[in-house]
Amino acid sequence: MGATRRRIPPMDLVTPDELQRIHDASMDIIEEIGIDFRDETALQHWRAAGASVTGDRVRIDRELLMAMVAKAPAEFPVTGRGADTAFTMGGDWTVFCPIQGAAFVRDLEGVRRWSTAEDLDNLAKLTHTLGAYQLASGFPCEPMDVPVHHRHLNINYSHLLHTDLPHFGLTTSREKAEDSVQMARIVHGDEAMAAGAVVFGHCSGNSPLVWDQSMLEGLRAFAGAGQGVLLSPFVLGAANTPADVAATVAQLNAETLAAIAYAQVFHPGARTIYGQFTVAVSMRSGAPMAGTPEATLINALVGQLARKYQLPWRTTGAQASAKVFDAQSGYESATSMMGGITAGANLMLHTGGWDESGLTTCYGKFVVDAEQNKLISRYAEGVSFDRFDEALQAIRRVGPGGHYLGDPFTLEHFQDAFSMPELMDFTSYEQWAAAGRWDTARRSREKAKQLLKDYERPPMDEAVLAELDDFVARRRREIDGEVR
Amino acid sequence: MGATRRRIPPMDLVTPDELQRIHDASMDIIEEIGIDFRDETALQHWRAAGASVTGDRVRIDRELLMAMVAKAPAEFPVTGRGADTAFTMGGDWTVFCPIQGAAFVRDLEGVRRWSTAEDLDNLAKLTHTLGAYQLASGFPCEPMDVPVHHRHLNINYSHLLHTDLPHFGLTTSREKAEDSVQMARIVHGDEAMAAGAVVFGHCSGNSPLVWDQSMLEGLRAFAGAGQGVLLSPFVLGAANTPADVAATVAQLNAETLAAIAYAQVFHPGARTIYGQFTVAVSMRSGAPMAGTPEATLINALVGQLARKYQLPWRTTGAQASAKVFDAQSGYESATSMMGGITAGANLMLHTGGWDESGLTTCYGKFVVDAEQNKLISRYAEGVSFDRFDEALQAIRRVGPGGHYLGDPFTLEHFQDAFSMPELMDFTSYEQWAAAGRWDTARRSREKAKQLLKDYERPPMDEAVLAELDDFVARRRREIDGEVR
Repeated sequence: MGATRRRIPPMDLVTPDELQRIHDASMDIIEEIGIDFRDETALQHWRAAGASVTGDRVRIDRELLMAMVAKAPAEFPVTGRGADTAFTMGGDWTVFCPIQGAAFVRDLEGVRRWSTAEDLDNLAKLTHTLGAYQLASGFPCEPMDVPVHHRHLNINYSHLLHTDLPHFGLTTSREKAEDSVQMARIVHGDEAMAAGAVVFGHCSGNSPLVWDQSMLEGLRAFAGAGQGVLLSPFVLGAANTPADVAATVAQLNAETLAAIAYAQVFHPGARTIYGQFTVAVSMRSGAPMAGTPEATLINALVGQLARKYQLPWRTTGAQASAKVFDAQSGYESATSMMGGITAGANLMLHTGGWDESGLTTCYGKFVVDAEQNKLISRYAEGVSFDRFDEALQAIRRVGPGGHYLGDPFTLEHFQDAFSMPELMDFTSYEQWAAAGRWDTARRSREKAKQLLKDYERPPMDEAVLAELDDFVARRRREIDGEVR
Repeated sequence: MGATRRRIPPMDLVTPDELQRIHDASMDIIEEIGIDFRDETALQHWRAAGASVTGDRVRIDRELLMAMVAKAPAEFPVTGRGADTAFTMGGDWTVFCPIQGAAFVRDLEGVRRWSTAEDLDNLAKLTHTLGAYQLASGFPCEPMDVPVHHRHLNINYSHLLHTDLPHFGLTTSREKAEDSVQMARIVHGDEAMAAGAVVFGHCSGNSPLVWDQSMLEGLRAFAGAGQGVLLSPFVLGAANTPADVAATVAQLNAETLAAIAYAQVFHPGARTIYGQFTVAVSMRSGAPMAGTPEATLINALVGQLARKYQLPWRTTGAQASAKVFDAQSGYESATSMMGGITAGANLMLHTGGWDESGLTTCYGKFVVDAEQNKLISRYAEGVSFDRFDEALQAIRRVGPGGHYLGDPFTLEHFQDAFSMPELMDFTSYEQWAAAGRWDTARRSREKAKQLLKDYERPPMDEAVLAELDDFVARRRREIDGEVR
């Protein structure tokens, strides 16, 4: 499946006046309270750009800020190394990307355990083969059995090798970000990287109102190479934002715009994505909560703001908090998926495997979410009138009291007129019982096993692979030297 | 929870021109193909109104049809017998009603079995006590242990006794419909029934393009008494409609408008609801499929048409096909809930307990769906700016790098700023494991047991109850006499 061109209208949740109130509040925050950039290089850049810098605190005049934001492209080209892997980030396009950052997996037997390098490879393979993703996650799980200083090499290598999609590298230090960009360059080549983004950096903000050094170094590594940069405050509603939906958005909007503006100060035209990760925190337990109405509302507001600023933007879909792949997981996931697509998101991140508030990647959920992405994509494409007149003729042929099963129009179009998901079971209770009473968790694990069995690696030039291998081997040696 | 006043904008899926194409096609169907009214009384009414009648086939001039549809109220008052049970049907209001018509339950121990009179009572009690429903379903399950000719008496009695909400009576024959209205009259009184609807009839169309006698008799019994009438074609996409989304809507729109027009011919000002039940049929198995994108699109189109006609309209939410209360059930339910509320539905029917394509009412799902309804309601209410300025002050107090947990604004508002669902588990894996590793199905059954244990019947005047008992006893004797 390629990128989805949305035909359903995005939801404009609030009036233009209300949206302006949020925007103005964000401007006040940036001008008057300021944002901490905990990074000497960024502070120098801001001083040079004309912002007021005191300690780490940067206060930016709203005209300066918005002039920088205006340099960000409304859309930009992205491409993988495979056929039909190019797409546009932004506008009325939507792409899907699986979970990032889990430390655990719920594995092919349904057992929850630490994730490994083998899981990383498996999830990269599933990303490639499921046909539901346009952007690979890079780190669908942490390879916990690999020394921490080597992990970014495994992460990039696994995704460059096992999928032909563009992917996310690492941003957790300058070296890791630079290695990510360099590995992508070996595989994709300078020409592709000049023409569009082939690799992305995901930079998380430290709410409230802080951008840390490692993320800013990551930003510079990716933006400086003309690659994609996702700038996402990490919002735990009521813990690191006010206990109010609109004010939470005013704060996160200030955080994101400040980072986008910085990316444009550093590298005018930088390929930035307006991001945010939002969950509310349960005031009973302190735990993050997925699929709640306020998170959906915050998403819709962010979408409306991003359209106002003409920026590509990212939401989180298929987000769940469940400890098993059960009904809760389904409710939470579908709520966030529908909320995200209705809000008109360009990048639906974490839409594959996310459970237990992101701590765990569930193999079964990974394949179910992929199918859901295809269904959501179909929904987003809206209603076609291409066959309308022809279909109306069928109504005349069949008439009152008839049925359409044998009608020529049905026979010609039934296979694509209505979606037929495979992992949802529509058989009768008796058929289902006779087939072994498998629930969705079981069915989806079996599907994942089959997909991995049938997986075929996309072709890669032998010389390129050798260069990649050499790079990784050399960097491992260098890192071990540094670490020792 | 009272009715929800929606502040999120309803989705206008297609352009006004595209909507007009569907409308015009519906008019062509009604004028040229015609609708079968398999009922001599209705045919007489149509002849008298000026339609062309040949056999059962009624062809209605579009001016006549739309003049009748224009008599239908855009909104109408509804009330139960309890405090705060009154609401408006239509406009920007949304109400929730649980599942109707299941033959099985998945019971308090998770066992699937035929449903009984005790289940009927239990589900009426849960409807009352969950606080998520404004309209009671009447027949959340069939009491299969009650002789079929008596069932409608149990159904009405159980709901009149165990809830104080307005409810659905039966429409499956004239006598059952009249008994439903009469029993409601005993409890609610003439005055309440003149002021608004206290009881509803659900009349299903027989697609394509047929309305059967029993449903039309039901329509007359309810509409004639000034009560609510829901007119719902039963659409199995590609089986009894064309294999095309827009043409399916053109057909069901013709069916619904014809029935609404008939209700207005029979009883001008009749309190009608534009209905439809839509699933697609799997062309692999012939089974109905819930939660598919085409069903969501059809809903959105129907909503847009209903707004064009200024008619209250109904969708189906929390619709699932799963054989157990598992992830599939959650995905399907949430997708249809989000689709329905985004489409701007006034009546969210089946939003409690529906599983296995409506064959089974799941006790656990009944209580989870109720909580989801509350979350959806919160979402639909949109974003408030009442505390916005005050919340912005908290951002100034906390500043970059701080946290909000101890801030006075958080302490004052955390309990209602972000929803905290109870049946979704947000604890850590370790806490969850220590508490017994309950999945959602298990947690929700335990909650249902507790709610039934704590249930208190709403008060009813002793004389009224005696009259109701007498009525039921007399009708049982009469029916037994008739049946023998």
